[in-house]
Amino acid sequence: MTTTTLVRQRSLLGLKELSKEEISSILDRAAYWEANPNKIEPVAQGKFVANMFFENSTRTRFSFEVAEKRLGAEVLNFSAAVSSVQKGESIYDTVRTLESMGIDAGVIRLKPIGLLAELAKKIKVPLINAGDGNNEHPTQALLDLYTMRKQFGELKGLNVSIVGDIMHSRVARSNLYALQKFGANVRFCAPDNMKAAELDAPYVSMEEALRADVIMMLRVQLERHESGMINSAEAYREHFGLTEERAATIAPHAIIMHPAPINRDVEIDDSLVEHPQSRIFPQMSNGVPIRMTVIERALS
Amino acid sequence: MTTTTLVRQRSLLGLKELSKEEISSILDRAAYWEANPNKIEPVAQGKFVANMFFENSTRTRFSFEVAEKRLGAEVLNFSAAVSSVQKGESIYDTVRTLESMGIDAGVIRLKPIGLLAELAKKIKVPLINAGDGNNEHPTQALLDLYTMRKQFGELKGLNVSIVGDIMHSRVARSNLYALQKFGANVRFCAPDNMKAAELDAPYVSMEEALRADVIMMLRVQLERHESGMINSAEAYREHFGLTEERAATIAPHAIIMHPAPINRDVEIDDSLVEHPQSRIFPQMSNGVPIRMTVIERALS
Amino acid sequence: MTTTTLVRQRSLLGLKELSKEEISSILDRAAYWEANPNKIEPVAQGKFVANMFFENSTRTRFSFEVAEKRLGAEVLNFSAAVSSVQKGESIYDTVRTLESMGIDAGVIRLKPIGLLAELAKKIKVPLINAGDGNNEHPTQALLDLYTMRKQFGELKGLNVSIVGDIMHSRVARSNLYALQKFGANVRFCAPDNMKAAELDAPYVSMEEALRADVIMMLRVQLERHESGMINSAEAYREHFGLTEERAATIAPHAIIMHPAPINRDVEIDDSLVEHPQSRIFPQMSNGVPIRMTVIERALS
Repeated sequence: MTTTTLVRQRSLLGLKELSKEEISSILDRAAYWEANPNKIEPVAQGKFVANMFFENSTRTRFSFEVAEKRLGAEVLNFSAAVSSVQKGESIYDTVRTLESMGIDAGVIRLKPIGLLAELAKKIKVPLINAGDGNNEHPTQALLDLYTMRKQFGELKGLNVSIVGDIMHSRVARSNLYALQKFGANVRFCAPDNMKAAELDAPYVSMEEALRADVIMMLRVQLERHESGMINSAEAYREHFGLTEERAATIAPHAIIMHPAPINRDVEIDDSLVEHPQSRIFPQMSNGVPIRMTVIERALS
Repeated sequence: MTTTTLVRQRSLLGLKELSKEEISSILDRAAYWEANPNKIEPVAQGKFVANMFFENSTRTRFSFEVAEKRLGAEVLNFSAAVSSVQKGESIYDTVRTLESMGIDAGVIRLKPIGLLAELAKKIKVPLINAGDGNNEHPTQALLDLYTMRKQFGELKGLNVSIVGDIMHSRVARSNLYALQKFGANVRFCAPDNMKAAELDAPYVSMEEALRADVIMMLRVQLERHESGMINSAEAYREHFGLTEERAATIAPHAIIMHPAPINRDVEIDDSLVEHPQSRIFPQMSNGVPIRMTVIERALS
Repeated sequence: MTTTTLVRQRSLLGLKELSKEEISSILDRAAYWEANPNKIEPVAQGKFVANMFFENSTRTRFSFEVAEKRLGAEVLNFSAAVSSVQKGESIYDTVRTLESMGIDAGVIRLKPIGLLAELAKKIKVPLINAGDGNNEHPTQALLDLYTMRKQFGELKGLNVSIVGDIMHSRVARSNLYALQKFGANVRFCAPDNMKAAELDAPYVSMEEALRADVIMMLRVQLERHESGMINSAEAYREHFGLTEERAATIAPHAIIMHPAPINRDVEIDDSLVEHPQSRIFPQMSNGVPIRMTVIERALS
C-alpha cells in the first residue's frame, strides 16, 4: 500500500466514503474516551495539529482544540479572519506552508466547493474535514450518530427527521450518508427553496416530520434566501420552526437535536433549547470524544 | 452544602461579596507565588481554563494566560472579535458551549450589565470576573491591594485617592469595596459628569486628592462624555491629569498607580509612567501571582 | 560584562551586527535540530516566549510558534489586529507589559522604522526581530543562507541574484549583509523606482540576474508604487517576473527562492512554485530549525 493511500485512510474527508464498520469503530472508541475523561493517554504527545479555519467557527474549533489538547498534542490555530489570507495568499499555500513546517495532521474548514478533495490529493499529512462548503461535515454527523446511539442503543430502524435548509447543509448530507448505512430512516422537511433535489431522502410535511424518534433542526440563514416565500424569521418559525406547540406533540421518547449555533425563536423556541428532550448541549459534549478519536486515528 | 454553593464559592464575581479574611488569604497566597517564580507546582495539570473575552483586552487576558500556564493548565482563548458572536450567538450560548466541552473554569469579561450574575447562576463551573461592565473588576483590585500592601505593609488607615471617570469604572468600584473592608480611607476626585452618586466615598478637589499615600489615576474615555465640560484631552489633563507639576507636590512616600492601558499625557504625563514613585508596571507584574491564586482557588 | 550587554547578545536584531562566526554557529546548530526532528530536548521548558506581531503574518508567526513549542516553551501570541492597539496603547507599552508579566524572550514584528532598536535599549529581555520595517528580517535571511548552504555546501563565491522591490525589502537587506560576510556575490535586479541607492550591491538586468546560482524573487506590493512605470501585475511579470520562459534559461544547478507569501503569476509563475529547482517550501521547512536555534540562543 502506498504512503498516499495510508494518509488518505487516516484522513477524514466525509462519511460517504466510510464503511459502516469504520463508523462503528469510531463511535466505539469515542465511548471509551467519554468513559475515561481524566485518563491521560498522551497518544499525540509531541505531535502538532493545525486547526485551519478559513471560515469562522467557535464551537467546532474549540471542540477540536479541547480534543487535541486532551490527547497531549501541540495545537496551532489558524483563523483566516486574523491572518494573511488578506494578503492574497491562497488556501493551498497556507496549508502547504503548515505542512512544510512539520505538522502531523490538519483540521480544515473552508467554503470553496471541491477544494478539500483537491487539497487532500496534494497534501501529504492527514486532513480532517471540519466543514466543507455545502458538502460534508463528518465530525458533526459522527457526534450526532453517537448521541442517537447513546439514546436509543442502535441506529437501525431509527426514524430521523432533518428540518430546515437542506440545500446548504453539510450537516444534513453527512448525517444522511451515515444514517442510511446503518438502516435508519431519514426524512427531510424544508421549504421548497431550501430543498436539495440530488439527495436520496423523501420530503415530508412539518406535521409528519414531528412523528420521529429524532427531530434534528438545522440552522437557517435567511439572508441566503431572499427570493423565497419564507423571507422573515417570523415566517420561518411559523412554518418550519420547532415551537412550543409543536414540541408538545412529539413522542415522549423522541429527542430534539441541533448542530448549533442556534437562532433562538427562529428554528427552535428559546424555551426548548434546554428542554428535557433536547440533546443540544449533550451533542456538544459528545463532540470532544468523537474528535479525540478522529485525531487519534489521523495520527496513528 | 450543595454543589452550586461550592461552585459559587470558587467563583470570583466581585469583591463586595468577599470577606476581609478571604481577600487577605488571596493576597497571602499570591505572595507565595511571587516568591517562588520558578517553582513548578502543576496544580492545574490536565485542567482546562477558558478565557472568554467578549470585550477586547490585551493586558488582562495575557495576565490570566500566563497565570494559567504557570499552573500547568490547558488554555482556551475566546475573543469575541474573531469569533461567532458575529453569527448572533449569544454570550450565554458560548459559555454553555465551552462548559459542555468540559472546561474546569472560565475567565470572563463582558459589557452587558447584570449578565455575569445571571450566568453564574446557570453555569456549573466556577467563573472568574475579568471585567464586568461598570460593575466590578476584582482581580485588578486584588493586584492593586497587593501592590499597596507590599509598599506600606498594611492597608488599614491608608489614604487612597482614585481620580478620573468613577462613573464608568469597575476598577474604582472593586477597589472601594475591598479597601473599605480593610479600613483604608478612599476618596474620589472626578469632573461632575464622571461622578457616581451611589458609591459611598467623598469627592475631593484635585489638590486634596494629591495629599494621599496612593494616587490611583483611572483611564479616561472622552468619547463617552461628549456633553460634559471636560471634552478634550487637553482640558482633561489641565483639570484632572497627573502632570509633572502636580506630581512634584505629592508626598515622597506616596505611590502613583494606574490600571492601564494608559493615555499618556491625558490622565498622566508620559514622563511619570516610569517615575520612581510609579507602580504602574509593578502592578502588572503583581497581576500574575494574584491571578494564579484566583485560578488555583477556582480549581480547588 | 553588564546584564544589558548579555541580553543584547542574546537578542537578534539584525545580521549586520553579527559576525560570520556567529552566523555559522547558528546554521550549524539548526542543522542539528533538523537532523533530530523528534528529539525532545526541552531547553525552554517553563519559559515564556511572546510572539508580538504588530504587523500581520501567518508564515513567520507559525514558524516561530512551532519552533518555540518544539523546545517546550509556553507561547503567548499577540497580534495587533485583534488586540488593544486599537485602544491607543503604544507598541512600547505592550512590550513593557508582557515583560512585566515575566516573559523570558519576545519575538517582535513591527513597521515603524527605528523603533526596534529603541525598544531593545529599554526592554530587559532578549528580543528577536521577526520583521522590522524596511530594515532587517534576520531569521528569514538565516533560513535562506541555511537553504543555500545545504544546497551548495558553502556560501563563499556563490552568485546570488535578488530580484524585485529591493527598496522596501528587509529580506534583501538581511541577505545582503549576511551573504557578503561569507564572500558571496550579491546582485540586485529591480525597476528604477524599487532600487535602494544606499545598499552596496550592483544592479543588473533581468537577463544577467538569471545567470546565478541562486535566483531569489521578492514579493512585490504594487500598491506601494503607483507612480512607477511598472504599475500593473502584468507589466511587472513581463519585465521582472520569473516566467516559465525565463526559468528555462537558468542553469540546471541553480535554485529558485522566494520568502513568501507569493503572488503567483506576478513575481513568479504558478507552475514554478513547486518546480524541481524551487526551494520555496523547503525554505519554510528550514525556518523551523533556524528559529529553534535563535530562541534557544535567546533563552541561554
